[in-house]
Order: sequence, then C-alpha cells, then structure tokens
Amino acid sequence: MTKTAAPGSGARLAEEARGGSRLALSRLLTAIESRTAAAEEALRALYPSAGSAHLVGVTGPPGGGKSTLVAALTAEARAAARAVGVLAIDPSSPVTGGAILGDRIRMQQYAGDDGVFIRSMASRGHLGGLAGTTAEAAAALDACGFDIVFIETVGTGQSEVEVASIADTTVVVQAPETGDEIQALKAGLLEVADIVVVNKADRPGADRAAAQLEAMLPPLPRNGVEGAPDGRPRPKRPQVLLASGLENVGITELLAALDVQRRLRADLPHVQAARLARARAQVAGILADRTRAALWSDRRRAETDALLEAVASHILDPYAAADQLMGLARDGS
Amino acid sequence: MTKTAAPGSGARLAEEARGGSRLALSRLLTAIESRTAAAEEALRALYPSAGSAHLVGVTGPPGGGKSTLVAALTAEARAAARAVGVLAIDPSSPVTGGAILGDRIRMQQYAGDDGVFIRSMASRGHLGGLAGTTAEAAAALDACGFDIVFIETVGTGQSEVEVASIADTTVVVQAPETGDEIQALKAGLLEVADIVVVNKADRPGADRAAAQLEAMLPPLPRNGVEGAPDGRPRPKRPQVLLASGLENVGITELLAALDVQRRLRADLPHVQAARLARARAQVAGILADRTRAALWSDRRRAETDALLEAVASHILDPYAAADQLMGLARDGS
Repeated sequence: MTKTAAPGSGARLAEEARGGSRLALSRLLTAIESRTAAAEEALRALYPSAGSAHLVGVTGPPGGGKSTLVAALTAEARAAARAVGVLAIDPSSPVTGGAILGDRIRMQQYAGDDGVFIRSMASRGHLGGLAGTTAEAAAALDACGFDIVFIETVGTGQSEVEVASIADTTVVVQAPETGDEIQALKAGLLEVADIVVVNKADRPGADRAAAQLEAMLPPLPRNGVEGAPDGRPRPKRPQVLLASGLENVGITELLAALDVQRRLRADLPHVQAARLARARAQVAGILADRTRAALWSDRRRAETDALLEAVASHILDPYAAADQLMGLARDGS
Repeated sequence: MTKTAAPGSGARLAEEARGGSRLALSRLLTAIESRTAAAEEALRALYPSAGSAHLVGVTGPPGGGKSTLVAALTAEARAAARAVGVLAIDPSSPVTGGAILGDRIRMQQYAGDDGVFIRSMASRGHLGGLAGTTAEAAAALDACGFDIVFIETVGTGQSEVEVASIADTTVVVQAPETGDEIQALKAGLLEVADIVVVNKADRPGADRAAAQLEAMLPPLPRNGVEGAPDGRPRPKRPQVLLASGLENVGITELLAALDVQRRLRADLPHVQAARLARARAQVAGILADRTRAALWSDRRRAETDALLEAVASHILDPYAAADQLMGLARDGS
C-alpha cells in the first residue's frame, strides 16, 4: 500500500458500505482499484464476512452480447429479490473514459434499486494485477450482502482468463457465428467454461452453432470427473445452453443452471480450487505491491531508476540488477 | 530461478548459440520460457552483446493476417541478407500444442536458412510474466546477431499490449473490415501504434478502411511531438499504410518505413522509454520469480499453502497472510 489515508477512514468506509451506503461502497471500490491504505483497512475489516456469494465469471469474444446477457440475468435475479453485483472488466482505454461512460448507461436502469450494484473496472493499470484487484472487489461486494456477483470480461487475453479463474462458475458466451469464429473461441476459452451460452439464439444458425460446440467438447469421462487444463477437476463437460439476452429467452433456465452449479459444487474440489486461486491472486497482488513500494518509494526511486537505466544500456544484466535491488529493499524495509 | 542445472551449462548454451548453433539457441529459448538456472547463466553472459537489434512489435485483432505479413517482411529482409528473428506469442492453449505445430508449419519455408529463426511462445503459463520472458528471448536473439526481431502478438488482452510496449516500434495490423470492427480496434490498440497497416489491401474496402483509420487518429500536434497514453512521447501520428502480406504488396514500403522509424528514433526519448520498459519487465519478472521461489520452495510450500487455505476459508484476511508470508521469506532466504 503506497498511498496514505487518515487512520480509521477505511474502517468507516467498510462500516458504511456494509450498512447499505452505495456511495461508501463506490468509494471503497475506487480505493481498491488504487490500492490505498484505506482499501487495506476496509478489506481487513470486511474479509471475515465474505465467502457466501456466488461469483460467476461471464466471458467470451467481443460482440457475443455478454453485457445484455448479464443485464437479463440481473433482472431475473432481482425478480426473486436477490441482490446482484456486477463487476465489468472494461477493455476500453482508461484514457477515453469508456469505463465510466459504460457505468452511467448501465446504471440508469437500476437507479434507486439498492439490490443492484454495477461497477466497471478498467482492464489496464491495476498495480497489483487485475485478478487480485477483481478478487478484492468481489470480496467487498460479497461482504456487503450481494448474493450473486457477475464478473464480466472480454475473454481474449491472458489477464481476462486469469480473472475468469477466480470465479466459482464460469459462463462462456458466444454469438451464433461461423465455424471459423468458434475455432477462435476454442483456443483457451472452452477449457475454462462450466456453461457455454450460445447467445442471440433468435438469429439463424444458433442451433447449428450449439451443435458445433457440443461436437467440440471432450467426450464425457467414464467417472464423470475430468481434469481441466487449469488443474481443477470438472464435475462434467460444460453444459451448452441457447439464450437471448435481448429477447429474454432462456434466461430463467440459465439462472437455474447457475444455481444448480452453485449447489452441485459446493462440496466439490473445483470450488475450493477457485477459492484458493482467488486467495493466491490477492496475496500475490499484495506482495507485488509491497515489493514495488519498497523499490519505487520516493526515497529509493533514484537508485532503482539508475539500475534500470544501466540494464537498458546493457551495462548491467537484469539478474545483477535484481540482486542489487533486493539488497536495497532488504536494507531499507 | 527455481530449477537447477549443471554449472556452466548455461554459459555453454550461450557460447554455442552465439556461434550459430540453432539447436543451442532453441534450447536456450526453452530454458528462458521455463526460467531455469541455465537460462539465467546464459542471459548474464549474452546480455552485454545485446542492444543493437530493432525489436518490432506486430499486433492487432485475430484474422488481420499478422503472420502472413511477418512472413512477407521476413522474406523481404532476407532478400537484403538481414538476419530475422520472429517471436510469435501464440494465444493457443499449451494443452493443444498449437504453438509447437505453428512453429513447424512456419519453419518449413526457412528450413536450412540460418538467417531466420522463428519461435512460438505460448501466451499462458509464463512464471515471470509474458513481457519479461519475451524481453529475455528478444535479448537472446539480439545477442546472437539477429538484425530485426519481430514480436507478433494478438493484440486483445492486457498482457499482449504489455508485450507490445517492450518493442522499439509497434505495428498494428488491421484487415479492411467494417467501421464497427475498427471501433473495437480503436480501444487501446491505436494508442500503441507507430505504424498502422491495413492488410489484405487487395480486398474491397481497403482504401475506405485506411481513410476511416486516418480520420480516427488524433490531430497532428503543433510541435510534432505529443504524449502517448503510455507516457512515451511520439514523434508524430502513426503512419497508415496499405499492404497485402499474401499478395506481397506494399511490403518493401513497410520494411522501409520500419527502417526509417529505426533511424529517426534512435535518439528520441521514445526508444529509450521502450528500452526502460523492457528492463523493468525483465527485472520485475526476476523479482517475482525469486519471491515465488522463496515462498513455494519444497521446504516452505506447506506453510504457504496453509496460509492460502486460511485466506480461502476467510479465517485470515489476505493482508495478514501477506504479512506472515513476508516474514517467512525474510527468515529463510
């Protein structure tokens, strides 16, 4: 934690956010994104209350209609009086302000509804790593009583796949496009899916796309449990569902399928693995943060920059620089 | 460095790779990907000889024809007897072996040509971070005398953009598609571009796509230098070029434009910033590696895992776990 805050301001934020203040929750998430001392204090206070929300990752290539699907799922869950949090990892540049604009548009529908909290997080510039920051934001929503937290990411880069790996259940969303595009989807994404949704099911080709996806899935293993590439045992092959977020088709069934996953897997190693992955991402983010703070503190920044200059000029090799930096960090911390 | 190797094996690899052994170079890159002790030894030996190659990032959305364009540029550079290295960051799953298969197909054309070295690197599973590993691989090729090193990535995720940031010059490749898709490209990618290539220029709409891209670029600043979002001053707006990798159209012009960038910018802060970014990525990778080695060593793994379990069960908050882990690392290292 490199920034300072008045002692107690994090504890107050935590208390107000838990008490239902949306403003406090919003400030807390901003603090988490900037990794301030207040965020650390708030999370230390909130963390014991977290652990009961269902964290659902929603990912897939651009244009699949993920946001519309999450909006439809949110409306469905609200109809059952369940509190819903949405963390949308927005690939827009922080420069263009895309994330903030997106928030405003999404928020309008739920203005005045305390049971919905939607937050866009820019996908760049997270000091402690996007997965760690997202896990902390999810823990904050969890502790504030949100029953289901959707973590929406564009599933194309490594960091987005890492974000998906911290969710209890992962939904991969695909528009009913050509075989080519499904091939592109296949690389990496199907491996993390618990449920695959062919969205925009009202479009021609949706049934065929669903059949193509089914054909791509690995055969069902004899014992009903197989190892996934991320090392998490899967209870079964991902389920393929047809839906339309826009036309509100298949949404009841999708939310029910999520609830089945939640119950089915509460005792499975899979969920425990996701919870361990979350813990690891959070702790790794904090450790990276502290190393960075030790090396790039105002007091030591000049020495660190001089070493990097020497590496850039090929006067010093990066291993020698790392040795010297670790010496610096040890002497001064 | 967590793995051990016979002392001197890294130095021998480095010597043989510099002497022209493709097998040694290939083994060295494998060692760099796995972050072995031999890789550290080899890089320490090679690093002082690196620093003269032009590192060219080639990125853009899937389907833009990046690989074909890089192949055409490679052929053009070979015609001038220049040695070319290609590092292709392959988004394929390491499970499916996509990266290795891709290598074999690409290699066939240059079998027996010592002036070309092509290597695919899986985009997942890099312990020290993809940018750090790629910077080290580029330094190895650089030290082995490759004059130009193409770093090809699918420009969709944060890690791929980070990889582009370690290149001296970045080319963003776009197929002549619809305005919508250019909008998607705009988010983040145009900001890192030094040259934008509208590839597949033989297709209808290429001129229109180029005009649309030109219209999207920020106005030329009065002094000809503007700050880019990554903090690197740009000498000018990105250049937009039409080309076709498949039909070998515009390739001579593109390679010439790259050489102009190389000369033009040798003294500009931009190149120095990229070299600093490379140094930082490499050193950060090494530091992350050492922290990980200290915490997940066989001797300490049980303690670390127990702490993460406690975080996953919400018995301990992640900050308290980080405090305890740093204590462990300090006591034992």
